[in-house]
Amino acid sequence: MTLSSVVWNDLKTVREKTPLVHNITNYVVMNWTANGLLALGAAPVMAHAEEELDDIVNISSALVINIGTLSSAWITSMRKAMAAANNKRIPIVLDPVGAGASALRTQIAREFAFEFRPNVIRGNASEIACIAGQSISTRGVDSSAQSLEVISAAESLAQRLNTVVCMSGETDVISDGRKTYLLNNGHPMMTRVTGTGCLCTAVVGAFVGVVADPLQATSSAMAVMGICGELAAEQSTGPGSFAVQFLDALANLNEQMIQQRLKLQSR
Amino acid sequence: MTLSSVVWNDLKTVREKTPLVHNITNYVVMNWTANGLLALGAAPVMAHAEEELDDIVNISSALVINIGTLSSAWITSMRKAMAAANNKRIPIVLDPVGAGASALRTQIAREFAFEFRPNVIRGNASEIACIAGQSISTRGVDSSAQSLEVISAAESLAQRLNTVVCMSGETDVISDGRKTYLLNNGHPMMTRVTGTGCLCTAVVGAFVGVVADPLQATSSAMAVMGICGELAAEQSTGPGSFAVQFLDALANLNEQMIQQRLKLQSR
Amino acid sequence: MTLSSVVWNDLKTVREKTPLVHNITNYVVMNWTANGLLALGAAPVMAHAEEELDDIVNISSALVINIGTLSSAWITSMRKAMAAANNKRIPIVLDPVGAGASALRTQIAREFAFEFRPNVIRGNASEIACIAGQSISTRGVDSSAQSLEVISAAESLAQRLNTVVCMSGETDVISDGRKTYLLNNGHPMMTRVTGTGCLCTAVVGAFVGVVADPLQATSSAMAVMGICGELAAEQSTGPGSFAVQFLDALANLNEQMIQQRLKLQSR
Repeated sequence: MTLSSVVWNDLKTVREKTPLVHNITNYVVMNWTANGLLALGAAPVMAHAEEELDDIVNISSALVINIGTLSSAWITSMRKAMAAANNKRIPIVLDPVGAGASALRTQIAREFAFEFRPNVIRGNASEIACIAGQSISTRGVDSSAQSLEVISAAESLAQRLNTVVCMSGETDVISDGRKTYLLNNGHPMMTRVTGTGCLCTAVVGAFVGVVADPLQATSSAMAVMGICGELAAEQSTGPGSFAVQFLDALANLNEQMIQQRLKLQSR
Repeated sequence: MTLSSVVWNDLKTVREKTPLVHNITNYVVMNWTANGLLALGAAPVMAHAEEELDDIVNISSALVINIGTLSSAWITSMRKAMAAANNKRIPIVLDPVGAGASALRTQIAREFAFEFRPNVIRGNASEIACIAGQSISTRGVDSSAQSLEVISAAESLAQRLNTVVCMSGETDVISDGRKTYLLNNGHPMMTRVTGTGCLCTAVVGAFVGVVADPLQATSSAMAVMGICGELAAEQSTGPGSFAVQFLDALANLNEQMIQQRLKLQSR
Repeated sequence: MTLSSVVWNDLKTVREKTPLVHNITNYVVMNWTANGLLALGAAPVMAHAEEELDDIVNISSALVINIGTLSSAWITSMRKAMAAANNKRIPIVLDPVGAGASALRTQIAREFAFEFRPNVIRGNASEIACIAGQSISTRGVDSSAQSLEVISAAESLAQRLNTVVCMSGETDVISDGRKTYLLNNGHPMMTRVTGTGCLCTAVVGAFVGVVADPLQATSSAMAVMGICGELAAEQSTGPGSFAVQFLDALANLNEQMIQQRLKLQSR
């Protein structure tokens, strides 16, 4: 089966099974994340009350943890939800937003990555390097640097944690420590809409919830996001219309578009 | 007066009086709710600090309570705001988001419905059935089942609570326990945008704030939402552009569009 | 240099330096604010955890405080962040959303204005008057009245606090107590999208972060917002499409558009 058939099959599986994705995420992107998951064909639920975490984790196909707007109460909820997910063997996807930008974020990102065994960690180069204990300067929540140095950082982190590491950038690097994929889809306009990275993480959650192999699930999810970015950029005149077209593309993406555009290869 | 004249008159009243609608709602839909109310011609205010609830309830035409993202502090604020609204005889509209999906939501939805006498309760079939104490399986916050069985559940709940129950679905059921309306407007695309149901609840709040009869107010509000859904679907190519067109439709809806499209009848 | 050259140069500076703007703002507008700053060419960060405020203030070019959805924990974070910003001489922009609508908001707005020396205070006429201790009736968070009386209230408040006061309305009044600018750009549709005023405040933060004179920075920021409002109104058919076009306009605004449209004059 070609890689584009794999991506298309995985997308079809998401649309057929409409996995319920439980998000404990930041305030900025909650609406965008929910709309992105609905457009894709998945089902979002946002819940952070300690009293209901067990119930919600229990009915969900995946748990997505995003540390973009932390506070101590939310950190407690995240820990409790991840423990419940570990218990129930429900996959966890971690987005270490802004790791490196404050001591709190660095500490929490590392704790979550090392103690709760997320199945996938998705971040930009500096966030991934921060978790790996390497220092790359971060300014706020956006960063760029992508090099062979950071690619191998991703690979060795994946190996060390026995997880899939997905490092977003001009080229996305997706590795489980044994095999690594490089994805060259996407568009610079994706950096002009807040939460595009966060939505990648949530979409990875949807795919991981229904596709057995997390490396394949993550690659397919990122390919879908990247191709939708390209399609949206062609239909838009700025970041406002880009975001609108992006949601339309998530809903309308078909096999032919994937075949024509996919730029995914193993390293 | 025909039903379409009633709906149009009620919409005109909302636009003329621009009722201030106080929302204590979930994080996911706050922006969308505020924009929907503004597009309609109403005025939104979001406030949850205990210290200011009396002041805000006092200047509002209606209070909308939505339990989509609970926590103990917010539950306390919701109770306090509803007590103040009961005190001041300001109408309350309750959205029991996800009742049935967790024990917490079920318990809180039932407590709010039975102890704070909301003037309108709006939810989907499984949420309404959950409040009524009937069991219909819910998965997350979206559900569908609509049947004669659940219609009569809505009617008997309305009677029992002396409230208006509005059960959304392919056919909306709106009952005060004595009279029941069935509404066949709307479009499936409304389920692909997060918070369309929540916005229905807020729009019901706007209508209930300025129209004396809550059954009529709720029917008019739901009719406006359903017709705007149809108009938006005709102008859009996916859920992203649908949401944009929906807001435009709320602002531009006129008498002729209501006359041509309204599918509202008493049962 | 003409005023339109000043505005254009300041916008270019923002785009070249991409200032990181730290927002502690209300839940309703977080997504819209982040997207507006990104469209403009600045970089947003939202963070409110006490443990990381020093770190985030430290890497930011400006701090924007918006009291639209208060709670005691957030008030504590806002105080701590402003103290840190004062300490590091990082400019503060204050948006006293709804001052006058509740005793809590009035008290907090006045405390923040008088005790933390914001470099700019941006609000509507009734919010500014409320801080100045004058009574103008406010209903919720939107208001209108603009007169010579309130203009001089803005000027004397600016003088008293040694700050820039920016009072939004059909005519924006921007004063540092010595010099006052009147801006006649903008469009009524801006009042139909939630958080347009909040985004003005955040955009002022971006300009104040990279332009030395806060009066000039505020005038340029408000001019950019007003002109984008006009451009967006010409491209849209309602508040939904207006918001989309507004973001596109922020990204695409160029020198010629500013020259043709700017209606800025000193009083």
